[in-house]
Amino acid sequence: MTTRTLRKDFSSDNIAGIDPSILASLVAANAGTVHSYGADPYTERLHQQMHALFECPMAVLPVATGTAANAIALATLAKPYQGVYCPSTGHVNTDECGAPEFYSGCKLLALPTPDGKLIPGQVSAAVAFAHAMGVHHVDPAAVTISQATEWGTIYTPPEVRALADEAHGLGLKLHMDGARFANAVAHLGCTAADITWKSGVDLLSFGATKNGALAAEAIVAFDPTLARDLEFRRKRGGHLWSKMRFLSAQLSAYITDERWLHNARNANAVAARLTTGLATLPGVTVLMPVEANELFLAMPAAIIARLRSAGYEFYDWPAPDNVSEPVIRVVAAYDMQLADADGFISAALT
Amino acid sequence: MTTRTLRKDFSSDNIAGIDPSILASLVAANAGTVHSYGADPYTERLHQQMHALFECPMAVLPVATGTAANAIALATLAKPYQGVYCPSTGHVNTDECGAPEFYSGCKLLALPTPDGKLIPGQVSAAVAFAHAMGVHHVDPAAVTISQATEWGTIYTPPEVRALADEAHGLGLKLHMDGARFANAVAHLGCTAADITWKSGVDLLSFGATKNGALAAEAIVAFDPTLARDLEFRRKRGGHLWSKMRFLSAQLSAYITDERWLHNARNANAVAARLTTGLATLPGVTVLMPVEANELFLAMPAAIIARLRSAGYEFYDWPAPDNVSEPVIRVVAAYDMQLADADGFISAALT
Amino acid sequence: MTTRTLRKDFSSDNIAGIDPSILASLVAANAGTVHSYGADPYTERLHQQMHALFECPMAVLPVATGTAANAIALATLAKPYQGVYCPSTGHVNTDECGAPEFYSGCKLLALPTPDGKLIPGQVSAAVAFAHAMGVHHVDPAAVTISQATEWGTIYTPPEVRALADEAHGLGLKLHMDGARFANAVAHLGCTAADITWKSGVDLLSFGATKNGALAAEAIVAFDPTLARDLEFRRKRGGHLWSKMRFLSAQLSAYITDERWLHNARNANAVAARLTTGLATLPGVTVLMPVEANELFLAMPAAIIARLRSAGYEFYDWPAPDNVSEPVIRVVAAYDMQLADADGFISAALT
Amino acid sequence: MTTRTLRKDFSSDNIAGIDPSILASLVAANAGTVHSYGADPYTERLHQQMHALFECPMAVLPVATGTAANAIALATLAKPYQGVYCPSTGHVNTDECGAPEFYSGCKLLALPTPDGKLIPGQVSAAVAFAHAMGVHHVDPAAVTISQATEWGTIYTPPEVRALADEAHGLGLKLHMDGARFANAVAHLGCTAADITWKSGVDLLSFGATKNGALAAEAIVAFDPTLARDLEFRRKRGGHLWSKMRFLSAQLSAYITDERWLHNARNANAVAARLTTGLATLPGVTVLMPVEANELFLAMPAAIIARLRSAGYEFYDWPAPDNVSEPVIRVVAAYDMQLADADGFISAALT
Repeated sequence: MTTRTLRKDFSSDNIAGIDPSILASLVAANAGTVHSYGADPYTERLHQQMHALFECPMAVLPVATGTAANAIALATLAKPYQGVYCPSTGHVNTDECGAPEFYSGCKLLALPTPDGKLIPGQVSAAVAFAHAMGVHHVDPAAVTISQATEWGTIYTPPEVRALADEAHGLGLKLHMDGARFANAVAHLGCTAADITWKSGVDLLSFGATKNGALAAEAIVAFDPTLARDLEFRRKRGGHLWSKMRFLSAQLSAYITDERWLHNARNANAVAARLTTGLATLPGVTVLMPVEANELFLAMPAAIIARLRSAGYEFYDWPAPDNVSEPVIRVVAAYDMQLADADGFISAALT
Repeated sequence: MTTRTLRKDFSSDNIAGIDPSILASLVAANAGTVHSYGADPYTERLHQQMHALFECPMAVLPVATGTAANAIALATLAKPYQGVYCPSTGHVNTDECGAPEFYSGCKLLALPTPDGKLIPGQVSAAVAFAHAMGVHHVDPAAVTISQATEWGTIYTPPEVRALADEAHGLGLKLHMDGARFANAVAHLGCTAADITWKSGVDLLSFGATKNGALAAEAIVAFDPTLARDLEFRRKRGGHLWSKMRFLSAQLSAYITDERWLHNARNANAVAARLTTGLATLPGVTVLMPVEANELFLAMPAAIIARLRSAGYEFYDWPAPDNVSEPVIRVVAAYDMQLADADGFISAALT
Repeated sequence: MTTRTLRKDFSSDNIAGIDPSILASLVAANAGTVHSYGADPYTERLHQQMHALFECPMAVLPVATGTAANAIALATLAKPYQGVYCPSTGHVNTDECGAPEFYSGCKLLALPTPDGKLIPGQVSAAVAFAHAMGVHHVDPAAVTISQATEWGTIYTPPEVRALADEAHGLGLKLHMDGARFANAVAHLGCTAADITWKSGVDLLSFGATKNGALAAEAIVAFDPTLARDLEFRRKRGGHLWSKMRFLSAQLSAYITDERWLHNARNANAVAARLTTGLATLPGVTVLMPVEANELFLAMPAAIIARLRSAGYEFYDWPAPDNVSEPVIRVVAAYDMQLADADGFISAALT
Repeated sequence: MTTRTLRKDFSSDNIAGIDPSILASLVAANAGTVHSYGADPYTERLHQQMHALFECPMAVLPVATGTAANAIALATLAKPYQGVYCPSTGHVNTDECGAPEFYSGCKLLALPTPDGKLIPGQVSAAVAFAHAMGVHHVDPAAVTISQATEWGTIYTPPEVRALADEAHGLGLKLHMDGARFANAVAHLGCTAADITWKSGVDLLSFGATKNGALAAEAIVAFDPTLARDLEFRRKRGGHLWSKMRFLSAQLSAYITDERWLHNARNANAVAARLTTGLATLPGVTVLMPVEANELFLAMPAAIIARLRSAGYEFYDWPAPDNVSEPVIRVVAAYDMQLADADGFISAALT
């Protein structure tokens, strides 16, 4: 009997490989020739599955990266002289090297949050200011939020609904960056529809890469008439795959038999185990509610050093205001086991 | 003994799937965790292999599509107020929905050709005109050519050298769109270095998707100092894969044991067989020298109809000037067999 | 009695200064303080005058240059992934350093013409080709024509109507670059309305600089709902003047008491006098109908040299196909006199 | 003897008209014909004057608006994937509708300040963060500051030098938005050179419109080799005037006989008089040091209402943190008199 090696890389979801069921789907899709650029049965099947999963008509456009999904989606919502509100910590604002601005021409308008989540009233106040400035200020067009957020927190359906109602009342659209959408749905125990169009979301970046795909995300527009615009923008960005079947097959396997939720539940559970084990360590503070698969921890430098000398990997993280100790981010991957969490906890203790 | 089904889809190289050796490489790369965004051993190995293949230092950036490779490469060569010369039939000009202009901000300046190949003197004349116009005309910055061209023709090393010398003498850079680079090298019997940097090429889009990859191309800059600029542009375009190993592993397998040349030689041979068999049919004219894996044929409508009723697929193509008959494009895929060509020829005859 | 010095600079309309009535209007507008950015009585008066001149509701946005007017207008008509058809010789395509592409993100799709004028059928054929290409080709959005053209030719109202009907039937908008709009209306003897919205034009760049203004053009949208979009784009381009009164006052004087037509008729008359005098010179060919204030002449090198040694200025011009002799462009400015034309003719003869 | 009417519009510098000496210069420049696009004696003379004023070689490009000057200047300093640091209150960030991002493609990175002025260390910390993020964060390229700032405060030469040294040490360039440059130089009593290139400024937007011009600013690059790049970008933005003499003549008159300093000193003196008169009013707080021609005042609503009912105009302004009373901005125009200030003060008192 072999002993499984404990996983020590908690730096990101992206260090993991491809879920076996997704890899099998890629291999299966390699049989024979099919038409290129999406006129293939795998893409057709994906569309049917997505319609069933989200219980509505929609446009679905597979792309390979989350940055591409966000940037193309926002470009469809905002003209080049317009503005898009986002939390200041949003991935679109901090981690995409200006891709949303590049694709849309818009200006991102960052709003402060304590925990990555916008709250009702923020956008109204910002829009009032913008309108008072007239053409000197970019024209507000949309709001984008992350689900889960970059602080690992999650909006409830009523929270999304409140933001959507506020945005729509101001003539703005609502986009959701769902790079960790599965972790959010797994946490909420709701349906994919509940937390998106039923709560007023207009466009969704439906992520799969962090949760087991090779490289696959879907731009999902709940207004199907946006399909044509999105398709041209995807091509112009160089994101239209000629062998589209291999994007579609990944996403198809991802949502077959709730594989996406299975993987996310597992990652969330590992994160929860880490939280339980670490929260009681002397000097350790769990900074944000651990609702998805990420922990943000204020931790004494000695413990951090001990973990790293034991081979554990994780990122130092910018501390929120009023936190003076070192802060780290710890991420549970979709294919970790609870034993991996226990190993991390043990190393922190020893 | 089973009878292999003849291939009938000659519409594009992209209808084929993944080469088994490349698929095996993807599966192998799925073992364990690695750092994301390219800090992984698969990407490191690819760089070493590419350096060996091209016999020079270079920057190598894997991306998923040829349009992305071309657009990012040209953006590095041309500022937003500059111009890039290309044959009017170039893929960058006709098939990429403006992606090169999007990424670079430049204006493509299309020059006429009878066969897809620029000839010395064209760029000099165009630059002289531009310079006489001063700031009213975009500032010439680069030349881009396709190897093989969109008419299936191929530049010899001396032909590339002549264009490079002309471009460099004018202060312009030379980019080569190598979506079918393997077919060109296979035809020329030269090395990858001979037809690129040894002939004066500054940047290359090194294509693999059409020749057996899932989705993989490499931007190759023979000036390694361009790496940083290219890396930021790749990220900003949403083309940086988090699980980079799966792009690198494709390209690595592609160039291991001359798999790329093996596949290209096969496609070229199938195209040659088609040419031999079709050239003598009454009313059929082979419009361009068949040097790679594409045939452009003026063909009586009756033969076209007969082929299509037999299930064969290929595209109608815009006829060159002075050709009044219908024109079709026939493409041999990397994994066809000579028997597939024979089947096509038989169907045309019957 | 003083002798007036003959004018010898026929290189462009832009070498002339400000019409005295326009300069007087600027001086008058300098009295007192007014609100900035267009909330002033001069701008209000301009709007009223333009409505009266064009006999319709509209959006009117003054800017300082023709390139800005064209670029902002086209940006309103075409999304970044779209295409705009123009004659290959169009100012937007050849003389604006890519400004229309910069402002709109679109790709200009140049169509060949013998005389600068598109004809019905060209756009339909081009759009059919584009649509067959799907997302690989930019999405056709608009057509732009120049009135008068860069070859000094002029569309009649029925000719514009035919192009507009074709464009609209294809879902495209029609923009008119009216840098020399006054010369065209003066030639046609129609109203400003006749040759624009009554003939189907959607947006007009209404030029004044070449015809006597300091620096003033108006973007005119016959769909007033475009005003907001245009206003944001003007600001974002840096073309919103804080002291707007001085743009509006120019345009106001320009159209008061038909000053614009008076000046254009004069320039056209000088051009006609030049044509009459030069057409019969041995070896001289008038290449295009002289309908506005520009002549394009194939002329023996000896005559060209004689004129230049006499101090006359004009540009060499790219020869149309099938013209082997040197070609020059001769432009009559709005404030020349017939005697200036006679001087030119005499110098050519001597 | 006539009584001069008191000025009541303190809303902006832009409500004023053209300085008589500048208007006279425009009229004088209208004599005869000159070559277009800057090849004229007025532009030549301006260059000589600017070289003398700044005591150094430079590139000088006149444009009509401050937004254009800033946007074109920054586009020369930052590539599309790069970032430019600015105070969060900077005009480029808040009042230009995204023009700097449009022209450059860059992302503005706003840093907080209490008074509109960056301080040493801020940029270093931000760059350290950016570099730690690698390609996920835009690549820092430049810093832009306003002189005077949007809070009416002014950097001393040592303060600029400290920021320049920090920027240069990090490989960044320093741009100065000098929309109110004259007010700053008048306040500092230094030379134009002292506060720009002698303190390390690389590019300057040299403003004239707010201080007496019709519409004229100059982009000034202290590295003359930037001229070509700037010229193409100016044309591509539609900001190259054909009748350039009328931009150059404005700027020429503006700096002849220290007209620019005369006007600025006057505006500053009016602002100082306002400060003296208003600072002692009960409930009124002068929020920022009044160093240029702008006052920011926390003022009881009753006084504000009284002023407005007396016909005075000024803007409500967003209050800084910790200020709960209404805040207004009061701007002294270049051509006001001390009596106008006294009138304002009296109206506040009555």
